[in-house]
Amino acid sequence: MASLWSETARYDSWLRVELAALRARVERGEVPAEAVEDAIERARFTLDEIHEVEAEVHHDVIAFLTVVARYVGDSSRFIHLGLTSSDVVDTAFALQIKQAVELLLEDLSAIRIVLRRRAIEFRRTPCVGRTHGIHAEPTVFGLKFALWENEFARHETRVREMLPRILVGKLSGAVGNFGHTDPELEELVMANLGLGVAPISTQVVSRDLHAEFLNVLAVIAGTIEKIAVEVRHLQRTEVSEAFEPFGKKQKGSSAMPHKRNPILCERLTGMARMMRGYALVGMENVALWHERDISHSSTERVVFPDACILMDYMLHLVLKVLDGMEVDEAQLKRTIHQTQGALASEKVLHALIEKGWLREQAYATVQRSARAAITERKPMADLLKADPEVTKVLDPQQIDSLVTLEPDYNTADFLLRRLGIVE
Amino acid sequence: MASLWSETARYDSWLRVELAALRARVERGEVPAEAVEDAIERARFTLDEIHEVEAEVHHDVIAFLTVVARYVGDSSRFIHLGLTSSDVVDTAFALQIKQAVELLLEDLSAIRIVLRRRAIEFRRTPCVGRTHGIHAEPTVFGLKFALWENEFARHETRVREMLPRILVGKLSGAVGNFGHTDPELEELVMANLGLGVAPISTQVVSRDLHAEFLNVLAVIAGTIEKIAVEVRHLQRTEVSEAFEPFGKKQKGSSAMPHKRNPILCERLTGMARMMRGYALVGMENVALWHERDISHSSTERVVFPDACILMDYMLHLVLKVLDGMEVDEAQLKRTIHQTQGALASEKVLHALIEKGWLREQAYATVQRSARAAITERKPMADLLKADPEVTKVLDPQQIDSLVTLEPDYNTADFLLRRLGIVE
Amino acid sequence: MASLWSETARYDSWLRVELAALRARVERGEVPAEAVEDAIERARFTLDEIHEVEAEVHHDVIAFLTVVARYVGDSSRFIHLGLTSSDVVDTAFALQIKQAVELLLEDLSAIRIVLRRRAIEFRRTPCVGRTHGIHAEPTVFGLKFALWENEFARHETRVREMLPRILVGKLSGAVGNFGHTDPELEELVMANLGLGVAPISTQVVSRDLHAEFLNVLAVIAGTIEKIAVEVRHLQRTEVSEAFEPFGKKQKGSSAMPHKRNPILCERLTGMARMMRGYALVGMENVALWHERDISHSSTERVVFPDACILMDYMLHLVLKVLDGMEVDEAQLKRTIHQTQGALASEKVLHALIEKGWLREQAYATVQRSARAAITERKPMADLLKADPEVTKVLDPQQIDSLVTLEPDYNTADFLLRRLGIVE
Amino acid sequence: MASLWSETARYDSWLRVELAALRARVERGEVPAEAVEDAIERARFTLDEIHEVEAEVHHDVIAFLTVVARYVGDSSRFIHLGLTSSDVVDTAFALQIKQAVELLLEDLSAIRIVLRRRAIEFRRTPCVGRTHGIHAEPTVFGLKFALWENEFARHETRVREMLPRILVGKLSGAVGNFGHTDPELEELVMANLGLGVAPISTQVVSRDLHAEFLNVLAVIAGTIEKIAVEVRHLQRTEVSEAFEPFGKKQKGSSAMPHKRNPILCERLTGMARMMRGYALVGMENVALWHERDISHSSTERVVFPDACILMDYMLHLVLKVLDGMEVDEAQLKRTIHQTQGALASEKVLHALIEKGWLREQAYATVQRSARAAITERKPMADLLKADPEVTKVLDPQQIDSLVTLEPDYNTADFLLRRLGIVE
Repeated sequence: MASLWSETARYDSWLRVELAALRARVERGEVPAEAVEDAIERARFTLDEIHEVEAEVHHDVIAFLTVVARYVGDSSRFIHLGLTSSDVVDTAFALQIKQAVELLLEDLSAIRIVLRRRAIEFRRTPCVGRTHGIHAEPTVFGLKFALWENEFARHETRVREMLPRILVGKLSGAVGNFGHTDPELEELVMANLGLGVAPISTQVVSRDLHAEFLNVLAVIAGTIEKIAVEVRHLQRTEVSEAFEPFGKKQKGSSAMPHKRNPILCERLTGMARMMRGYALVGMENVALWHERDISHSSTERVVFPDACILMDYMLHLVLKVLDGMEVDEAQLKRTIHQTQGALASEKVLHALIEKGWLREQAYATVQRSARAAITERKPMADLLKADPEVTKVLDPQQIDSLVTLEPDYNTADFLLRRLGIVE
Repeated sequence: MASLWSETARYDSWLRVELAALRARVERGEVPAEAVEDAIERARFTLDEIHEVEAEVHHDVIAFLTVVARYVGDSSRFIHLGLTSSDVVDTAFALQIKQAVELLLEDLSAIRIVLRRRAIEFRRTPCVGRTHGIHAEPTVFGLKFALWENEFARHETRVREMLPRILVGKLSGAVGNFGHTDPELEELVMANLGLGVAPISTQVVSRDLHAEFLNVLAVIAGTIEKIAVEVRHLQRTEVSEAFEPFGKKQKGSSAMPHKRNPILCERLTGMARMMRGYALVGMENVALWHERDISHSSTERVVFPDACILMDYMLHLVLKVLDGMEVDEAQLKRTIHQTQGALASEKVLHALIEKGWLREQAYATVQRSARAAITERKPMADLLKADPEVTKVLDPQQIDSLVTLEPDYNTADFLLRRLGIVE
Repeated sequence: MASLWSETARYDSWLRVELAALRARVERGEVPAEAVEDAIERARFTLDEIHEVEAEVHHDVIAFLTVVARYVGDSSRFIHLGLTSSDVVDTAFALQIKQAVELLLEDLSAIRIVLRRRAIEFRRTPCVGRTHGIHAEPTVFGLKFALWENEFARHETRVREMLPRILVGKLSGAVGNFGHTDPELEELVMANLGLGVAPISTQVVSRDLHAEFLNVLAVIAGTIEKIAVEVRHLQRTEVSEAFEPFGKKQKGSSAMPHKRNPILCERLTGMARMMRGYALVGMENVALWHERDISHSSTERVVFPDACILMDYMLHLVLKVLDGMEVDEAQLKRTIHQTQGALASEKVLHALIEKGWLREQAYATVQRSARAAITERKPMADLLKADPEVTKVLDPQQIDSLVTLEPDYNTADFLLRRLGIVE
Repeated sequence: MASLWSETARYDSWLRVELAALRARVERGEVPAEAVEDAIERARFTLDEIHEVEAEVHHDVIAFLTVVARYVGDSSRFIHLGLTSSDVVDTAFALQIKQAVELLLEDLSAIRIVLRRRAIEFRRTPCVGRTHGIHAEPTVFGLKFALWENEFARHETRVREMLPRILVGKLSGAVGNFGHTDPELEELVMANLGLGVAPISTQVVSRDLHAEFLNVLAVIAGTIEKIAVEVRHLQRTEVSEAFEPFGKKQKGSSAMPHKRNPILCERLTGMARMMRGYALVGMENVALWHERDISHSSTERVVFPDACILMDYMLHLVLKVLDGMEVDEAQLKRTIHQTQGALASEKVLHALIEKGWLREQAYATVQRSARAAITERKPMADLLKADPEVTKVLDPQQIDSLVTLEPDYNTADFLLRRLGIVE
């Protein structure tokens, strides 16, 4: 991903656009065929030369063209013919984004494969479900992965839906009305480059496209942050249910040899913040002046590489975490029973309502015994059995069967099918 | 839009969900039919009663249910049966978002109609195209509207593509594995409510959906900001080419009676900043703890109404500005000629290159005469005619025809067709 | 706080400024004394009247002046004399901010008092210190409060340092060069109003001031978020060390009667996100056009009340949480010993190094026994005593004294003294 | 600035802290003196070695210490004695920030010198003051610079006030209660390093400090954006009053040789957006878990270098723009008269009110003639002289003297004195 965004890659993309335009001019008989041959054969540049010229003219495209012209010689007069800098720069930018998106789609796909595998692996693994950080009800550990898979499926859809909008170039000239080119040439060149055509443009393609792209990355980063926060919670000393992978020779702390810290997930958490900062820049870049101002340009040169490289890194890192996450199934089970059966409170509530109790009354009764179970560390079943009002309508056996803390695996299976994770 | 987000509207949506769930329970024969009849007939609430109960129990759904139960009486035991608060709250939230989006889609459509009308109105109106705030080349005034229309078309697509993802509800219970409901009930209820089903959920629907929604609003706000900034530029005293509508009795300044200020567009500019702030909140809300924490809730109660009402207001205001914008066509023409023909510099550059000049040499010659035209306020045609190198290859008539500053209306027509604005 | 930001409060502030200016004009003999008397006696307005006029003139200050003039009659000609709208609006805005800051300073002070009390209350309460969510070393529970107190002390300093900068008004007229007023008048009026003078202004006071204000609020919100996240962690079922206050009749969940959720702290967590969104708006508002554009105004009318009211609410809520937080000291102690003495690993490491071991070797040895203590649930002391390399240099008694998990209360006392919490 | 943030500089800072701690241990007689001598003489590292070890242990501080220990040999056992990684990393970070701030303060000072020079240079240069982008009243061009100078003066104050808070280190160990160090050692080391002591810390220094730092940078960037936007406006073709410096061989456009674009200022505008993104990250980093989580760390490694280098670049660039800005004084004067004297409308308004007219009546009369002057391009003086109501109270000479468009230089002088720019 980093190589896609190197300075050399940038000028290579520019050259690709210039050559595609030249080729189209030849096809249309506007330029002698040998100009393309010359250009293809001879056109090159070195960064040093470009920097040297740019220091003088303060204009990167002119510097680039000047250097390329030196190598190409006479035929260089047909290069950039009728084009304005942004025709080249913005179209080339779309080429770079296209390559970046292809990598990101591969990353997303790889993550979804791992998530599906682990969802299936843990489809029979009970665990506690927590809301507000408080134990709520038993559930199935595999559903965590299934939910994340579903979020990544949405992200993939978002990316794919966005692509035809954002992977577009333009050759519409200095202010967008094709002063020295024409729409047919534009369409020819974009087809050649594998890009769509911006239906209308100013000197540049509209920046709502770039804002959308960065926003999608930031929301993907949000899901990664969510996974990372989950793992950090599960790895807490008091929870100890799951652990991010930890190298054999890895050291957790320079001072405390007993530590095994979820540093990858902590890192991912922080990185999501950076992605939000990048998204912000994209959104501020939309409102350019008139037929363009260039305020977006310097930020895009930093933010697009930074955001794409960071996204790629985050996706690889979360893949590693998900793939290598160690799960302590025994501990998952112990946790479910930590609250002495209080997690069955909703089931008991429903049973009492079904027996004709009013909701409010049932709620108060169950709340009392559940809270006592937790604070006094006594089995809730015993407490219920000792409540004469309860035993009027529920016998001990019924109570025991209500406080069984087994999640419903059939529903979990149904969900995996609904998501297409299993058939 | 504001009424959609009132407290009453909120509880009304909750009631709709509770009744839909009750109806589904009846359909499935789990609850006596008269329970629905009772509930539909009697269920009601007042805000005062809810507030009173909430002050005690510190839980809004319980307060709501308590009040509704008072009115419904005995059958109230079947209300909320098997549901958890978030089943109701999140599904009802989707209902509110759905109504909001319908209004926004109407707004977008109305704006596009005006933009198309004005694009056509000004398809033969020349104006200067500006890049970097500097006059660049002549173009067609109508293209400004056409470009904005294209951005709004994209926004509409974004909204429509997002809808099936985000307009989803859930009845999956306390931790998402249908402890006391089942997926079939969920599907029945959502179909009844006109919503999709969240393919998997925790206690709540995933918040990437809400982040996406707010991000789309913020990018729409970006286009509105872009339009507003354009109008503010055009209305500057020195430019005076176009003006936002101004009431007959409106006063521009308490102290300076001569002023006519683009206050609507300035207001719109500022409001886009607020929308970005809201988007940020949505993106931070994605990473909830475990099967949900409730940190997102208080922010959504503020940010969603605020963002939707603001978006609606912005869309109405920009519609008013676009619809009533006054354009001074004479001034548009005067501006084109302000730089003494220097805007033809690219055309002259190309003519010289075609005559066999090297690009660098042609560039230097044209730059010299163009800059002189501007700083010395002399017609560029005269300066070119006085340059012996130029006149070697171009005769005076050719020079005159090159510096004609008429934009190409055929291309503009082509673009309007490409965008579907004209046939 | 809300009443400070009502529409009526806003116009009241405007009137205060207008009257102060009138009084100064009288003092300087420019206006007959009875004008002030008339104005003070008669000047009033109703919101309805102002709205009615504003609907026509689209300018709030003109509407306000028109209505006030109706009541004042003839002397009204001396009101607003030489002033421009922003002289009034911006100066009145500073008056409102001043009142808001006074409330916030009271809130900060109240919080610091509670924090000091609780820091002292828990100065002898051991607890585990956690880094990366992993148990690290024993520490003193009171230090958590002491650290927060120190952050709030800094916040108070930030607010106080900022005040002389931001509590400034201006009467410098339409473009800041005192067209119809003079600096002496400005100084007189500001002194009268208890404000500083903006050393230089355009039509408005520079917006770096307002950005700074909102940034300070957002950083305060960050500390509140930090406290809220801490409490949420401590209240997790697995930790159960501390709990935010919970009303006697409060219900945790509509479906799960056993739950006690940290909803106040979750709410505070979310609210910090909103405050960051507001800060963003303030930072974008700095770059106004020329001698002012009015894009900031609509945002400030929303963001300043929203941010101040939210800040006030957050401060009150965190005060309630801190004041009423229930701490389970027995559980705090149990937690320390949860990892079988592994928390002493650094102490043992140091002891081995002192005995001449190389750090790397000591680290490996201690890591091995600490990890075994945790995963095999065996006391680390026993494991160390069974290691012949260790027992070569440390006898059993020394080992036992090393794994004592008592924090150093003297250091905690020192820190409380260093912070001025105790003497 | 970039070299301050290189990887080598980072490890150099770590070494400085380790050596300072070692020296303090020697001073206190805890470690043999030759250990310091050994360490100072032999301690070194190469990035390659550190990277190699880090790839194995996944912990940068341990890798660093391992490599340094190799070079130092036996005495290495006294290095890092009792310290935890963050004692070194956070203290070293403060050292880096300190150096960065010193550079930034130099930049700020250099900018203020240029601003004062140019404020004085243009203290007698009239120009139009614009509000809402509309000509308002004449003012003095030098006041623009004076206002910016005042903002930078505030920024300098903000930085200086923040320094004692943020330039602090800590040696308080793994969880902040000095498990293996003591406060006296901490104070000794910080004094030696020229840093303050964090009054209390966890494993790390509180992150409100870092949020504050980045927020201050973002607000400084806001002022730079404001200057940049101003220059871009002044350089617009229609305004052409001032121009950022333009190299002799610089080319404005690859296609349009006549162009001279304000690219430096456009670049600065965009960069301010990036700085806001960085500030956001800092604010999100405040709420770390318990006695620290490490989510902030990866972001700070990117954002602090990026933000400091960007700030430094922006400050240098805006200095260049301000220093080299070309001002066309003739054009400034032409602009004042562009609206035919309408800018005198407030003066005429006041004159009519003084003559006993009611404000509303005077406003209507002046508005009518001012608007006619602008739209019909007739001198407002002539229009007023043709109004019989006006001439009843003002004779032609009085009218002429009112429409003189000379700003008040005495007031400008007063402001320069108030700001300390002149004596």
